[in-house]
Amino acid sequence: MKTMSHHKWIPATMLAVLAMSPSAFAQESASTEEALATLTKGLDSVFVLLSAFLVFFMNVGFGCVESGFCRAKNAVNILGKNFVVFGLASLSFYIIGYGLMFSSGNPIMGTSGWMLGDVNPADNLPQKVFFFFQLAFAATAATIVSGCVAERIHYGAYMALAFVLVAILYPITGHWVWGGGFLSTLGTPFHDFAGSTVVHSVGGWAGLAGILLLGPRSGKFPKSGGVHPIPGHSMALVFLGGLILWLGWFGFNPGSNLAIGDGSAVAHIVLTTNMSAAAGLVAATIVAWLYFGKPDFSMTVNGCLAGLVAITAGCDVISVPMSIVVGAIAGALVVFSVVFFDKIRIDDPVGALSVHLACGIWGTLAVGIFGGEGCSLGSQIVGIIAVGLYTFIVSLIVWAIIKATIGLRVSQEVESLGLDISEMGMEAYPEDPFPG
Amino acid sequence: MKTMSHHKWIPATMLAVLAMSPSAFAQESASTEEALATLTKGLDSVFVLLSAFLVFFMNVGFGCVESGFCRAKNAVNILGKNFVVFGLASLSFYIIGYGLMFSSGNPIMGTSGWMLGDVNPADNLPQKVFFFFQLAFAATAATIVSGCVAERIHYGAYMALAFVLVAILYPITGHWVWGGGFLSTLGTPFHDFAGSTVVHSVGGWAGLAGILLLGPRSGKFPKSGGVHPIPGHSMALVFLGGLILWLGWFGFNPGSNLAIGDGSAVAHIVLTTNMSAAAGLVAATIVAWLYFGKPDFSMTVNGCLAGLVAITAGCDVISVPMSIVVGAIAGALVVFSVVFFDKIRIDDPVGALSVHLACGIWGTLAVGIFGGEGCSLGSQIVGIIAVGLYTFIVSLIVWAIIKATIGLRVSQEVESLGLDISEMGMEAYPEDPFPG
Amino acid sequence: MKTMSHHKWIPATMLAVLAMSPSAFAQESASTEEALATLTKGLDSVFVLLSAFLVFFMNVGFGCVESGFCRAKNAVNILGKNFVVFGLASLSFYIIGYGLMFSSGNPIMGTSGWMLGDVNPADNLPQKVFFFFQLAFAATAATIVSGCVAERIHYGAYMALAFVLVAILYPITGHWVWGGGFLSTLGTPFHDFAGSTVVHSVGGWAGLAGILLLGPRSGKFPKSGGVHPIPGHSMALVFLGGLILWLGWFGFNPGSNLAIGDGSAVAHIVLTTNMSAAAGLVAATIVAWLYFGKPDFSMTVNGCLAGLVAITAGCDVISVPMSIVVGAIAGALVVFSVVFFDKIRIDDPVGALSVHLACGIWGTLAVGIFGGEGCSLGSQIVGIIAVGLYTFIVSLIVWAIIKATIGLRVSQEVESLGLDISEMGMEAYPEDPFPG
Repeated sequence: MKTMSHHKWIPATMLAVLAMSPSAFAQESASTEEALATLTKGLDSVFVLLSAFLVFFMNVGFGCVESGFCRAKNAVNILGKNFVVFGLASLSFYIIGYGLMFSSGNPIMGTSGWMLGDVNPADNLPQKVFFFFQLAFAATAATIVSGCVAERIHYGAYMALAFVLVAILYPITGHWVWGGGFLSTLGTPFHDFAGSTVVHSVGGWAGLAGILLLGPRSGKFPKSGGVHPIPGHSMALVFLGGLILWLGWFGFNPGSNLAIGDGSAVAHIVLTTNMSAAAGLVAATIVAWLYFGKPDFSMTVNGCLAGLVAITAGCDVISVPMSIVVGAIAGALVVFSVVFFDKIRIDDPVGALSVHLACGIWGTLAVGIFGGEGCSLGSQIVGIIAVGLYTFIVSLIVWAIIKATIGLRVSQEVESLGLDISEMGMEAYPEDPFPG
Repeated sequence: MKTMSHHKWIPATMLAVLAMSPSAFAQESASTEEALATLTKGLDSVFVLLSAFLVFFMNVGFGCVESGFCRAKNAVNILGKNFVVFGLASLSFYIIGYGLMFSSGNPIMGTSGWMLGDVNPADNLPQKVFFFFQLAFAATAATIVSGCVAERIHYGAYMALAFVLVAILYPITGHWVWGGGFLSTLGTPFHDFAGSTVVHSVGGWAGLAGILLLGPRSGKFPKSGGVHPIPGHSMALVFLGGLILWLGWFGFNPGSNLAIGDGSAVAHIVLTTNMSAAAGLVAATIVAWLYFGKPDFSMTVNGCLAGLVAITAGCDVISVPMSIVVGAIAGALVVFSVVFFDKIRIDDPVGALSVHLACGIWGTLAVGIFGGEGCSLGSQIVGIIAVGLYTFIVSLIVWAIIKATIGLRVSQEVESLGLDISEMGMEAYPEDPFPG
Repeated sequence: MKTMSHHKWIPATMLAVLAMSPSAFAQESASTEEALATLTKGLDSVFVLLSAFLVFFMNVGFGCVESGFCRAKNAVNILGKNFVVFGLASLSFYIIGYGLMFSSGNPIMGTSGWMLGDVNPADNLPQKVFFFFQLAFAATAATIVSGCVAERIHYGAYMALAFVLVAILYPITGHWVWGGGFLSTLGTPFHDFAGSTVVHSVGGWAGLAGILLLGPRSGKFPKSGGVHPIPGHSMALVFLGGLILWLGWFGFNPGSNLAIGDGSAVAHIVLTTNMSAAAGLVAATIVAWLYFGKPDFSMTVNGCLAGLVAITAGCDVISVPMSIVVGAIAGALVVFSVVFFDKIRIDDPVGALSVHLACGIWGTLAVGIFGGEGCSLGSQIVGIIAVGLYTFIVSLIVWAIIKATIGLRVSQEVESLGLDISEMGMEAYPEDPFPG
């Protein structure tokens, strides 16, 4: 008002009104705008933190599913891996991985942002909110590997791979897709909304490389031929884990929107995620019932996870009815994939390759089929191949280095005694007279 | 400003100020209003989605409580039912149930909204947010039934009932109360805020009908008279399930407010919900301690659930001190109800009738007693009877049809061997030498 | 506008604009301000309720860790204590504790606010939101005690202590720090952001007093000298509990900010909390591996909890890199502390003293070391001593009264048979042929 205070010809009453309103309004407006900005940032923070907590909770889910599908004699080992991995991932992603993935750098990798720096690609969010959400994602990729190599790997060997995976392997392909790298600048960009490829297939490829170097668990493929099923020790843990993972996915996919907006886009993602899971589990149950003669519960759970992995890439662009189709196909696929991997004598104790790799690929392709405009099957195939080749080859090299240095596989004796007594020095259920 | 620009007599400085403020303000104001509307919708979406995730989590809780209270030889069967039911419910509620329940239609049922249509009774929320929250509720009703019929029903028979329940049975009574149907237009409307009747009693009535057609588990009521207790196989699962259900109820009741507002109304609901659960578990523990001589842990858990079910109808209108009274009465009631159902030889393996039906009725009546103005005991009784009669009769018919077609009860041999080996083709804990 | 309507010399068009804007703006502005205030309160409510739900979930975590670390024959007893405690805490904190802690009163204790009254120190939150968050905290303190006295205490004796602890003991020291009491008005105030001392050490001190009066479990310290390890019955429960506690801490620490603001401060707390946990578990695993020759899984879990307890006091003021240091020291400390308590023949079945007391003290000191300006090592030491002396002495008296009246320790026979069969009248896993 100072600049106007000498315009005596304006009636005092009006001046008073102006004094109260437009300029007050100017201040008010500024503060309203600021208040709105703070509220929006705060609301998006609550939304993304809630999502990150749900993704964090997936660690419980993975640990339960993996240990439940394995024998009691190796349970502590698997639970331990699933517990330690979030600790290792926190350190390695904080120090190296985050910068490699999200700083601008070049089309191949980021080149700054160690210990966060000031890298923050999500300008609607505080940096640490964005980082924590991404950290939870990074740990997921490592957790998937743990299932593939279960019941025969050295504790330390898995830790080494997990550290490198989260520090270097995962962030580089992540940069290609989510960090401004070359897959995000294709004519039609590669579309992977929440990570069917970036997270799940990457975990699957690294796990496959490990399986190839480790070989199958002893007894799984008898010399006499055929497949000797090795049932898991607790379906209660599998149940817990399966539903906790489903719940966690409501953070994984919707949270990847990174903003709540008016809720519409996020709710669409919640719904496609849920319907694909539902269709996946129903399809897998029916297919298993017809195919094996029993409504195999492990297929029910893996069918659900298959639907979740498959819709992850396109949960934002695929319609609700089509999400049912994507999930149903994933649910059927996972049953045949489990049978297939057994047939080619790839020993994947918990079905992680079928769930995360096979359905990760299917879901990424599904974006090209059902995603509508702005998605191209060609770009999807390019992304699948680029990420797959890189991850498989580099992780094969890393596994080989681990094998040559600290060793990969436990001895035959340790394996038959169980990793818990030998490697961990304790049993999961010491009072049970038949631990393995 | 265009229309004013020719008023040359206004000093330029003032014009400038006006140019910057009132009209800018008009635009600003519109955008402020829009921003506020988006924020409110986004915030309500986060709140209701969080609630829906908590209600989803209740599936884990039901599965744990039910399987923990049953024998190991039937654990996979029960866990499987609790896993599959959310898949089936997702499909059936999406395709049919939601429209029947929430589209306007007539006082008896909705007549549009298949696969959502454009039905959205909550104009503060995106349609898919509202749908997903309601879906989680619908699945709960079906899950309650699973406990009632445990340890003796065919896997497929339960699935068939669950599908019909979520597609048709539950949505129709739901329409009467929450969809604008005749119970919501009584002189004093029937008040059931979050579903003591609409969800819990409905599950209980359908379960009771199933129990009557199935009969008790063999051995439960020996010919020599009396009751042979069949202890559940894992109190750890019961513990997990009980507390997870308590947690889930913080989504079930508060989320039913569908908007956070300034938080006051929702916080009141959180608190009445919690205090009723607390009073219920303390009362049940004390009553059981006095009555049986031991602080029966299963009564502690069921007392907690009893308090939760009972406060569900009136959590919004009952005061905090009175919520303690409602919960304490429910906690005592559940103990005597369990004894009563045993006495009349109704075999309810997990106490679901006592928790959901008996306390659902009690809680609905409690609204008439403690709910204050706007609630009437008469209307509450009308609602209880209308919903109960309809649900019991129609579900009895549906069960009878299932019995006549695909069959209801497993053979005596399968029952004594356990449903897991026979029906599911696997065991929950295959390494345990004494699985049943 | 009324007062201006007679200023005919203002052109009608302009008047119209003014009529539409400044005064409309005045109303608008009021409603905008109100809308912003409601939104902020609503958003903070969602944030704090989410946090409270996560803290509530910690009860599941404590129950799982404690029962998993104990023998199957005492599992129902421990699970029951962890279930009942939230019920008792709800009642006692509602009736007495909240008022003692948060009403203004005097520097020693609050003197009003029974059954809430109108006490609400958080004016950005509805009273019931603040209360419910604080209730979840209060219950935590009681839960810690349950681990210390496990496998040998009467069910009722623990209940009595838990009730008094939440009603009186915890609220009084809580008042000193968080309720405006004398520790909050020191020259440099005692800084304990989320309760390393206020919650965790208090639980630890009360537990230590109980252990001293109870004595060790029979067989733990043989007369022949040395320590006889008593392994827990389920590492699956320990895994579940450990990760659930980690998750719950994302409510415990960030929620203590009581407002989301723009998310920055809260995200900092999320991150220091996580990094300290990560460093704690990695450090404990490495130290145990070097020290015992095995990557002891129970140390991994306790190392994680150690890091969480330690960062709780300073999660707001300690930098992310320093949070890693705080956590790593806590992780190492917990290993040596467990060994130390064994050496001095203090029988702490689940390591609760090492986690909550030792690391609670360490974390409170760490604020003085790493907290920067506004924190003083002297004030931290004063707070640790004041709270510790008071809690230890008063809880010793309460335990002694319980011992003299209802009795503290079960008979030798009950202890060796297991508390479940004797005290609880049931077994956790009745089908297992070797329950203890």
